[in-house]
Amino acid sequence: MLCKNIESVNGNLHFAGMNTLTLAKKYGTPLYLMDEERIRENCRIYKNALGKLYDNFTVLYASKACSFKRIYEIMKEENMGIDVVSSGEIYTALRAGFPLEKAYFHSNNKTDDDISFAMENSLGHFVVDGFDELDAIERIASKLGKNQKILLRLTPGIDTHTYEAVNTGKVDSKFGTAIETGQAEEIVEYALKFKHIQLCGFHCHIGSNVFDSDTFLRGSEIMLDFMGLMREKFDYTAKELDLGGGYGVRYTDDDEYIDIAENIKKVYEAVKLKIDAMNYPMPQILMEPGRSIVADAGMTLYTAGTVKEITGYKNYLSVDGGMTDNPRYALYKSPYTVFLANKMDKESNYKCSLVGRCCESGDVIQEDITIPKPHRGDIVAVATTGAYNYSMASNYNRIPRPPVVMINSGEDYIAVRRETLEDLTVNDL
Amino acid sequence: MLCKNIESVNGNLHFAGMNTLTLAKKYGTPLYLMDEERIRENCRIYKNALGKLYDNFTVLYASKACSFKRIYEIMKEENMGIDVVSSGEIYTALRAGFPLEKAYFHSNNKTDDDISFAMENSLGHFVVDGFDELDAIERIASKLGKNQKILLRLTPGIDTHTYEAVNTGKVDSKFGTAIETGQAEEIVEYALKFKHIQLCGFHCHIGSNVFDSDTFLRGSEIMLDFMGLMREKFDYTAKELDLGGGYGVRYTDDDEYIDIAENIKKVYEAVKLKIDAMNYPMPQILMEPGRSIVADAGMTLYTAGTVKEITGYKNYLSVDGGMTDNPRYALYKSPYTVFLANKMDKESNYKCSLVGRCCESGDVIQEDITIPKPHRGDIVAVATTGAYNYSMASNYNRIPRPPVVMINSGEDYIAVRRETLEDLTVNDL
Repeated sequence: MLCKNIESVNGNLHFAGMNTLTLAKKYGTPLYLMDEERIRENCRIYKNALGKLYDNFTVLYASKACSFKRIYEIMKEENMGIDVVSSGEIYTALRAGFPLEKAYFHSNNKTDDDISFAMENSLGHFVVDGFDELDAIERIASKLGKNQKILLRLTPGIDTHTYEAVNTGKVDSKFGTAIETGQAEEIVEYALKFKHIQLCGFHCHIGSNVFDSDTFLRGSEIMLDFMGLMREKFDYTAKELDLGGGYGVRYTDDDEYIDIAENIKKVYEAVKLKIDAMNYPMPQILMEPGRSIVADAGMTLYTAGTVKEITGYKNYLSVDGGMTDNPRYALYKSPYTVFLANKMDKESNYKCSLVGRCCESGDVIQEDITIPKPHRGDIVAVATTGAYNYSMASNYNRIPRPPVVMINSGEDYIAVRRETLEDLTVNDL
Repeated sequence: MLCKNIESVNGNLHFAGMNTLTLAKKYGTPLYLMDEERIRENCRIYKNALGKLYDNFTVLYASKACSFKRIYEIMKEENMGIDVVSSGEIYTALRAGFPLEKAYFHSNNKTDDDISFAMENSLGHFVVDGFDELDAIERIASKLGKNQKILLRLTPGIDTHTYEAVNTGKVDSKFGTAIETGQAEEIVEYALKFKHIQLCGFHCHIGSNVFDSDTFLRGSEIMLDFMGLMREKFDYTAKELDLGGGYGVRYTDDDEYIDIAENIKKVYEAVKLKIDAMNYPMPQILMEPGRSIVADAGMTLYTAGTVKEITGYKNYLSVDGGMTDNPRYALYKSPYTVFLANKMDKESNYKCSLVGRCCESGDVIQEDITIPKPHRGDIVAVATTGAYNYSMASNYNRIPRPPVVMINSGEDYIAVRRETLEDLTVNDL
């Protein structure tokens, strides 16, 4: 199976040890399921891998992958740090009682309001994206009487060959300041001058869904060279090195398994070797997995509706959700694995496209899947939907967003309630 | 200018007769503006064009383009019909007091709950997408003691060469039943057998944003031939012919002007000629414009944030919104026209990409625009955002959705309130 939390039991699909048909009946569809134990296990994979090697590390959960109150409670209990990217994420983390000194605030464009809101709530670090953000932080920190810790986000100029929309480490990017152009050096010099800003170190983010350690190795090598240069030029020693991102996720059986611990070990050892050779004090090491913490902890259940067989062309299976709860095929043609939850023991020999209910041809969940012959009323399961599904959901076609139901040790509970029709119009005057 | 509701006055951008800088200051950014008079004018273009030619017509506003309570009030006042695609749109129309007997219910996948909800509220017509929907309607209508009026949605097999995601009339489509394969004939025979279903006629939707009358001419010709065949085979005469869709919209100065009235006249005359030759009673004619009713009645205002100049590469201007309020570039690479609202008298000689604030490289509003040199705090306006912007908005990155402010005769009023941070977590347990 794709992930160990997915099983077939007497022809029924089980997820996180529970029968998905029972859950679909209890909560209705469309329905997001999340496996709490898997989320915690994924956190521990990163923490244990780094912890074995080194005691000065932090793993930040990149919460844009999936952000709601309960997730931050779990991150608090797992002793994780978090990345946040907006006042909305900060507010949600606060409501969960998450200690904000362990938060890192990203965004290529933090507004003055965001900056004030974060500082007023004593958020730990800003990951600064450019010159004018430094000006804004200094201005607001001075007003609030704060000394704000920051990292500078730099672009090491690496093209990861992952999908362009998640490719963030190349020079031509809206994020960060480029090393190659000399601008990174300028921004370090600039940052060091401010009275209310404390430069703790550097951040890079090479891309999302990375499948090899080479990417992190190349990224860290460039960052270390740059750190050496900054020591030489400005007598500045970085105390933190944030390598950004996390490892890839298995969306289909074609995706390879990644030994995250082994990959992290390789990166750590390369960093350690180089830093010792440079005679540089070993900095705190940070990583920022998001997708790989929550993706395979998620599954979406739908009810099959129209089955359309166009003679001589192809078949369409429509479900009661779509690009509103999972826009990733519409945006990136992302692959997913699909099951018929009530026909796990039937032969998969029916080819079709799995489409949503939106009035839009682009509303496709997955093209050309092969499943058992479907009928109206079947329960359709899409696996590995824990990342960038709930967080990217919309109300297009005025479709309410599904609830998020968590599963832990054979118990299910609602983490996010289903939107109601009343919710849709709550702000309509 | 792109549309007559856009003007430059003393270096400031005016929209619908009001200074956008004043509105940005009053309501904050990001901000959706909508020109109520333009919406009404666009409705009247269709109604007057058809009304001059024929007295038995209906113009339906395809409300998925932009759906909130106030829009349905305006449609009621303009004596328009509406298309709806979900219980959420039906509920919103009800809250606006819209008379639902003038609504047509589309969707490739209506759930049993949707069907019941629509019938309980005496919705006028269902536009039926396939065989199993007929079964479901008959079952529910029988239970509720209703006789449900329907149109059958057919696919005439026309490829409009518009963007694939909005190309809905070709045979290989999740929508409708194909004429070419013989399945349309089968579904007519099937539909005529049901006791609680009244087949009123046929619907086709060839595509969205259509720029020529040829598409509608070819579509209507195929539909009329099919109607003739159904009369021959089943002695069935259609009373309604819904030609779907509407005409294209000018997003940039490169888009041509369309004389909608002239185009409609051509289509009407061709239909009339053919139908008389067939000796067929002239049916009621329906059209379903959505985009062309609201698109150029909309504008989005942002505040400029980070201006990033990557030496030797390119420039990025980040704003305080992005794919969360306008995902159309991320989804379709849609063109838009951008202004610096406070620098309308400055020379446009600064090339940059206009990007959003989301932590995602694909969060682009428009690539390679040329505007006056921008600075943090400038007001950035994106024109023609009235369709498929608010309706497709998300809370990705936990960014609250902007308010919709309507303008009418020099007065501005809130139609949809700005989401608050509290709204974001209202369903989080």
